[in-house]
Amino acid sequence: MGARGSISATLVAGHAALMAGEASPVGLVTARPPFTEVELPTLDRLVFGGHEIRGGRLLDEARAVLTGCGLPGLAERHADALDAVDARIRPGIVRGGGAAIEALGEQKVAAGSDAEAVATIRRDIDAFRAEVGAETVVVVNVASTEPEMAPHPSWSDLAALRDAMQGQASVLPASALYAFAAFEGGDAYINFTPSTGSRIPALSALARARGAVHAGSDGKTGETLVKSVLSELFVRRNLNVLSWFGQNILGNMDGAILDNPANKATKVHSKDHLIARILGPDVESRVGIDYVRSLGETKIAWDHIHFEGFLGGRMSLQFVWSAADSLLAAPLVLDLVRLAAFAGARGEVGVLAALAPFFKDPMGTDEQRLISQDDGMLAWLRRAEPAR
Amino acid sequence: MGARGSISATLVAGHAALMAGEASPVGLVTARPPFTEVELPTLDRLVFGGHEIRGGRLLDEARAVLTGCGLPGLAERHADALDAVDARIRPGIVRGGGAAIEALGEQKVAAGSDAEAVATIRRDIDAFRAEVGAETVVVVNVASTEPEMAPHPSWSDLAALRDAMQGQASVLPASALYAFAAFEGGDAYINFTPSTGSRIPALSALARARGAVHAGSDGKTGETLVKSVLSELFVRRNLNVLSWFGQNILGNMDGAILDNPANKATKVHSKDHLIARILGPDVESRVGIDYVRSLGETKIAWDHIHFEGFLGGRMSLQFVWSAADSLLAAPLVLDLVRLAAFAGARGEVGVLAALAPFFKDPMGTDEQRLISQDDGMLAWLRRAEPAR
Amino acid sequence: MGARGSISATLVAGHAALMAGEASPVGLVTARPPFTEVELPTLDRLVFGGHEIRGGRLLDEARAVLTGCGLPGLAERHADALDAVDARIRPGIVRGGGAAIEALGEQKVAAGSDAEAVATIRRDIDAFRAEVGAETVVVVNVASTEPEMAPHPSWSDLAALRDAMQGQASVLPASALYAFAAFEGGDAYINFTPSTGSRIPALSALARARGAVHAGSDGKTGETLVKSVLSELFVRRNLNVLSWFGQNILGNMDGAILDNPANKATKVHSKDHLIARILGPDVESRVGIDYVRSLGETKIAWDHIHFEGFLGGRMSLQFVWSAADSLLAAPLVLDLVRLAAFAGARGEVGVLAALAPFFKDPMGTDEQRLISQDDGMLAWLRRAEPAR
Amino acid sequence: MGARGSISATLVAGHAALMAGEASPVGLVTARPPFTEVELPTLDRLVFGGHEIRGGRLLDEARAVLTGCGLPGLAERHADALDAVDARIRPGIVRGGGAAIEALGEQKVAAGSDAEAVATIRRDIDAFRAEVGAETVVVVNVASTEPEMAPHPSWSDLAALRDAMQGQASVLPASALYAFAAFEGGDAYINFTPSTGSRIPALSALARARGAVHAGSDGKTGETLVKSVLSELFVRRNLNVLSWFGQNILGNMDGAILDNPANKATKVHSKDHLIARILGPDVESRVGIDYVRSLGETKIAWDHIHFEGFLGGRMSLQFVWSAADSLLAAPLVLDLVRLAAFAGARGEVGVLAALAPFFKDPMGTDEQRLISQDDGMLAWLRRAEPAR
Repeated sequence: MGARGSISATLVAGHAALMAGEASPVGLVTARPPFTEVELPTLDRLVFGGHEIRGGRLLDEARAVLTGCGLPGLAERHADALDAVDARIRPGIVRGGGAAIEALGEQKVAAGSDAEAVATIRRDIDAFRAEVGAETVVVVNVASTEPEMAPHPSWSDLAALRDAMQGQASVLPASALYAFAAFEGGDAYINFTPSTGSRIPALSALARARGAVHAGSDGKTGETLVKSVLSELFVRRNLNVLSWFGQNILGNMDGAILDNPANKATKVHSKDHLIARILGPDVESRVGIDYVRSLGETKIAWDHIHFEGFLGGRMSLQFVWSAADSLLAAPLVLDLVRLAAFAGARGEVGVLAALAPFFKDPMGTDEQRLISQDDGMLAWLRRAEPAR
Repeated sequence: MGARGSISATLVAGHAALMAGEASPVGLVTARPPFTEVELPTLDRLVFGGHEIRGGRLLDEARAVLTGCGLPGLAERHADALDAVDARIRPGIVRGGGAAIEALGEQKVAAGSDAEAVATIRRDIDAFRAEVGAETVVVVNVASTEPEMAPHPSWSDLAALRDAMQGQASVLPASALYAFAAFEGGDAYINFTPSTGSRIPALSALARARGAVHAGSDGKTGETLVKSVLSELFVRRNLNVLSWFGQNILGNMDGAILDNPANKATKVHSKDHLIARILGPDVESRVGIDYVRSLGETKIAWDHIHFEGFLGGRMSLQFVWSAADSLLAAPLVLDLVRLAAFAGARGEVGVLAALAPFFKDPMGTDEQRLISQDDGMLAWLRRAEPAR
Repeated sequence: MGARGSISATLVAGHAALMAGEASPVGLVTARPPFTEVELPTLDRLVFGGHEIRGGRLLDEARAVLTGCGLPGLAERHADALDAVDARIRPGIVRGGGAAIEALGEQKVAAGSDAEAVATIRRDIDAFRAEVGAETVVVVNVASTEPEMAPHPSWSDLAALRDAMQGQASVLPASALYAFAAFEGGDAYINFTPSTGSRIPALSALARARGAVHAGSDGKTGETLVKSVLSELFVRRNLNVLSWFGQNILGNMDGAILDNPANKATKVHSKDHLIARILGPDVESRVGIDYVRSLGETKIAWDHIHFEGFLGGRMSLQFVWSAADSLLAAPLVLDLVRLAAFAGARGEVGVLAALAPFFKDPMGTDEQRLISQDDGMLAWLRRAEPAR
Repeated sequence: MGARGSISATLVAGHAALMAGEASPVGLVTARPPFTEVELPTLDRLVFGGHEIRGGRLLDEARAVLTGCGLPGLAERHADALDAVDARIRPGIVRGGGAAIEALGEQKVAAGSDAEAVATIRRDIDAFRAEVGAETVVVVNVASTEPEMAPHPSWSDLAALRDAMQGQASVLPASALYAFAAFEGGDAYINFTPSTGSRIPALSALARARGAVHAGSDGKTGETLVKSVLSELFVRRNLNVLSWFGQNILGNMDGAILDNPANKATKVHSKDHLIARILGPDVESRVGIDYVRSLGETKIAWDHIHFEGFLGGRMSLQFVWSAADSLLAAPLVLDLVRLAAFAGARGEVGVLAALAPFFKDPMGTDEQRLISQDDGMLAWLRRAEPAR
C-alpha cells in the first residue's frame, strides 16, 4: 500500500543494490548479530509487488528520491529491478484519506462497499502470490498518513463489522481495509504509518482467527527515535524534565500531505505520547511538523529539552537531527517483512509486540524506550526455535 | 581532596538544603527506586571534612558557584553548615599537579617524602573520624585534574612502591597518595577526576589487603553522559558512525586548569575512548575542551555526529548541552559516598565495577553504555543483602 | 498601556537601577555615540505612569520577571520607585483584545462608546501630566497582542471615524483608542506591539492635524532582529536563499496570549514579511511561535536557513537565539521615548520613519535591513538641530 | 598557485558550466547589480593556467570535489575544459610550506635561490600570456596555508630584498615569491590564503614601482563571513559581547594541512582578530579548527556568542554553518580576477583596499564589517570611469 511512494522506491532500489553487492546492509537491524544467527528469510528470497493510487513509474520516483538523498545514478543502475516490481503494482483503494490524499489518486479503484474493496485487494494478493510463487505474503502500509476516522460502533465486533462493510457507507479507512484483506487470507500486515491499520478490536480478532501476525504502528525513524533513547538519560540520572519541545521540517510528499491539518493531527498524536510514557505526565511536551519544500528528502528536527537538576538549577539539551528519511525507513521495512515472516513461520499469531522498537506507537505494549524495546526483541528472537 | 572546590561547596550547601527540606533530591541517583528500597546510609548521617590547598572560605566559594548556577542566596542560607565543614578542612598535599595546580596552593603541606605525605593524610583522616564519630570514611577526589605522571617501575608491586616512597623523589601524584592513605586505614576511595588516583596495581593490591573498596574514575556528568546514551542509537539501528566530534567550553576553575595542555591531555584521554568502545575503532573521534571565562559555572558542549545510513547516505545529529556542571556532579558524589559505604558494609572489597555509570573511565569494566552500566548497577544493588 | 506587564516592570526597575548607578546602560541604543552627542531628554527626567487592565502590584511583576531573567533582588532594591509608579497606574480599557486578553481584565473600565473610552484615556493623560509636571508625554503600547480587527469603513476618514465612535459598536481596538487619545492632545504615541495602534489613515491624519509624532510597530528584539542582519549576508554574496524557517518558543504572559490562534496570527504576520522584503518573494518563509511555560522569561528561537551556492550546491545556516526578551525590550522603550520627545521638540510631525530599526513592521518605510535602518536613523539624528 | 587544488578545480569546472549555460552565476558577487552595470571583463574572456606542486589530473580533482559537494557528473561534463587548463599547469615552487606541504610536492621545481625561483615563475607567466594571448594576467594564490615565516630584515627594503634573494638561503615563502614574480612583470596578485603573499613592505614598493595591483588576504567564505555580519547586531543594539567562541571542522585537503600546528597557527591568527576590531579588545575570542576527514568538502562551524543585555542579564546566540567551502570560494576568485583586471585597466596601482569584503584579513584597511566593506566597494566601483 503506497507501492510507488518514496519508501517503496528506496526499498526496491536498495534491495537491488544489496543483491548486486553494490551496497552493504547498513541501516538494516536484521543485518547485525544476533539476527544473523537466526533463520530469517534471506534477502534474496524477497519479491515485491503492491498497490498504488498514484500513476507514474517506480523508476522515476526512485530517481527523484535517491538523487534527493545524495545518491544520483543508483536508481538508473537498477532500472530493471524497479521496472519488474512496477509491473506488479495494481491500482489502489482510497478511503478516508481526506482531500489531500484523494487528490493524488490517479488510478484508484472504484470499489463500491468496503466488503467489495477488501475482495479486490484480496484478489490482487492471491494473484501476486501465484505469480511470484510466494510462500509467505506480508502486506505493508507505507502510504501517506490518513486523517483519524471516528471509530465506528461495529469496530468492536467482527461479525458486526462484516455486516457494516456490506453497506455503501465507508466504515473502515483504506489502511484498515488492507489489514482486513491480509488477515482474511492469513497473511501478515505491517502498519508503518500512524493511520488506523489493524488497531481495531475486530481486526485483531480476525487476525487471531486466521492465524495471521501483525505489527505497528508508525515507523520510528527520526526525531522520535532520538527521543526514545535520550529520554532515558534523565530517568537514570533522576533529572527532572520540565519541557520537551520538538519541531520537524520536511520537504517530501510525506510533508506535503502532513501540511493538511487533519492528516497532521494523526501524526502529531502518534509522536507526542512517548514523552509522557517515559518521563511522566507532568512534562510539557509539544511536537510540531511543518512542510518546507526546499528540503526535499531531508527531514530536520530541532528538539529543545529543558530540565531541572540539583537544587532546582535549570539546564538544557538541544539536538538537531538531519537525515534522509526514506533511507532510514526502507531498511526497517525490509527488517519488518523478514521478522513478520519469521514469526509466522514459527507459529506466532496476532500482534507482534516484540517488534516495538520499530514503531513510534507500538501495538501490544506501552514500552517506549528504545533500548528496553530492543532488548525485549532480542530476547523474543532467541526465545524459541521457529515452529516449522 | 579539593574540599573547597566548586563540587565540594555545592555538595555541602546542597546537603544542608536537603536536610532543611528546602530542596528535593533531584539529580541524586540514589533518591529513585530501587535505591530507596535498600539500606543505604541515610543522607542525614553524612558529615563532611577534607583537605584543600587553596585558602579562602567555603561559604565564599559556595556563594560564587551557586550564584553562577542561578541560585543566589542559597549559600548564605546555609552559612552555618558551610562554616562547620570549613572548620574541618585541613591543608592539602600537592604532588605532580603541574604548574597550574601548584599555583593554587596557598596552604599546602611541605610533606617531605611520599611516605611522609601519606602519614600526614592518614593522621588527618583518623582525626576526622574521631572528631565526628564516623563509622565509615569515604575519601573522595574532587580536586583539579593532574597532568598524567609517567608510571614508576614500582607501581606494579606494593613492597617496591613502599620502598620507593621513602625516598625524596616523588613517585606518586597527590591523587594516588590520598588513595594510599585511605586504603592504609581500610577506608574507601572514590576518584571523581581523571587523575591517576587508585588506578595503579600496587594500590589495588593494598585495597584488597586492607579490605577497602574503591571506584573511579572521572565523574560522567555532561557531554560524555549524553554520548554514552546516544551512541547506542546507532548500534541498535546498525547505522555507521563515521565521525564524532565534541567540543566543550567551560568557564570555571576546572576550565582554567584544563587550559594547561598537560592537564587537558589527561582529561581528553579520559573522555575520548568511549566512542571507540561503543562504536568501534574505525570511528573518527575528537574531543576538545576550551576555557571561556565568561561562561562561569556553565559548561556547554557541541557534538557533531556524522553517520552513514542505508546505501551510504550521509546524515548528521548534533547536540548542544548547556548545564551547570557542579549541580550535576555534587549529587553524584553524595550517591557515590552512600554506595561505597553500602558496599563496604556488606563486605565487598576492591574495585566497585558496578559503579561504572558514574564514571567516564570506569575502573573494573570496559562497559561504557550508560543503560547497560545502570542496569548492571541495579542488579548489583539487589544481588545480595548487605553482610553485617 | 500594559503598565504592569513584564516590559513596563523591567523598564521601571531598570530605570531606577540606572539612576542609582547600579547598572550601566547596556542595551540602550541611545547610550552609544552619536546619540550621546545630541540633546535627548536625559534619563533622569523621565517619569512613568500608565494604564493597566490587570490587578496586582508592579513590584510583584518586577520581582517575578527579573528573577526569571536571572536578576533576583533587583526589584526589591527599587521597591520605592516601583511603588511610586504603581500609584500612578489607572484602570485600562479593553476593546477587541479577544477572549484571551479579556480574561486578564480585572480592573478594566466600562467605557461605553469608543468616544467615551478616548475621553477617559485623555482625562487620565492630562491628570498624569499635571501631577508630574511633564513637559512632554509619550504614550507607549506595551500590552499583549490583539487579534487583527477587520478594518472599519470609517478608518479612512477622520470625520467619519469620529462619527462612528459615537455609537455603541466598537470600531477601534484598544491599541488604536490610546493612539487617538494621545494624538487628540498632541502627544506622541509609540506602538511596541503588532496590534493596530496608529496604523489607520484617519489616525495619521489626526496626528498630523494636532502636531503629534508616532512610530511603530512591534519591537524588534529577538529572532527578527537577527534575521534583519543575517539576511544581508546572502544578498551581498549573491547566494540564493531557498527557505527560511523560524520557530520561537517562549514562556511568559506574552507567550500565553500568543497561544491563542487569533492573537498569534497578528504576531506571525508581523514577523513573517521581512524575508520577502529583503530576499525576494520566492523564498519559502515560515515563522512559528509556541508557548512553553517552563521557559518563563526566556525566549528561544531556532532558525534554519537553506540556501543555494555556486553551481546549485545546497548549504545551510542555523541559529539558536536564547534571550530574556523583557531585558531586550525595556531599554528600547526608553530609547523610543527619548527619541520621540526629541523629534517632537525639534518640530517633527507624523510618522517617524527614521525609528525603523526598533520595529519588526516599521511604519513609514519598507526598509527592513537593520544596518540600513540604523544608518538612516543616525543620518536623521544629525540632520538638523532641534527646533525649540 | 595551487592550480590543481579544490578551489581551482571548482572554478574551472564551474566557469565551463556557466559558459555552457548550465548554471546561473549564483555566488558571484560581480553577477549582481551594480557590478553588472560596470565594464568588468566578461566571464567568457577568462582563460586559466597555473602552477601546482601536486601531480594528478585536474579532472580527477574536480570530480572528487564536486561529487563531495553533491554535484556528481558535473566535472565529467566539462572534461574538455578541465583538460585544456590542465595542459597549461606547470610544476610549482615550494618554499617555507612546512613538512605538511612539502609532502605534497610531487612535481616541484628545484629552483636554487629565491631569485632563480622568481625567474622561473616569471618565465612561465610570460609563456602563459603568450600562449593564450592574454591582455591582462592576474596571479592568484589558492594553495595550502603556509606556516608563518619569521620576517627577514630585508623585507623592509626592496634593494636589500633583491640582494638577499640572490643567496642560497630562503628569504621569502612561496606565496611571496609568486607575488614578486607577478609584480616584476606589472601583473596583478591576489592572495586568497592567509600565507604571507604580498604583505611585505618591499613587495608593496615593487608593486607600486611596476604599476601592479594586489589584494588579500584569506578569502572570507564561511564562519568569518557570518561573524563579520552578525557582530554588527551587538554594536548597533549596544549589547555587550562577553565571549565569542568558534569551532570549525572540515575534511578536505585544506583541513588536512591545517591539522599541522604551524599551518593552523597562521589560519587562526587570520580568523581571530575580527572580533577585537568590531567588538573591542575586551571580548574573549577563540577560534578552533579541526580536521574531520569524513566531512569531505563540507565545512561546519559552530559559534557560541555569550552576551550581556540590560541590567547585566546573560544571553546567547549560537549558529551552525554547514557549507561546501569550495563552492563558496571559487566564484569569489572569479570576482577578484575580474575586479583586479578592472582596477588595473582604469589605472589603479598598489593595494586594492576596496576589495576588503572578500577577505578575512583585508590589506589596506582595518574595516572588518561586511556591510561597510561592501558599501565601500560599491562606492569605489562607481567612483570613476575606467581609465583606458
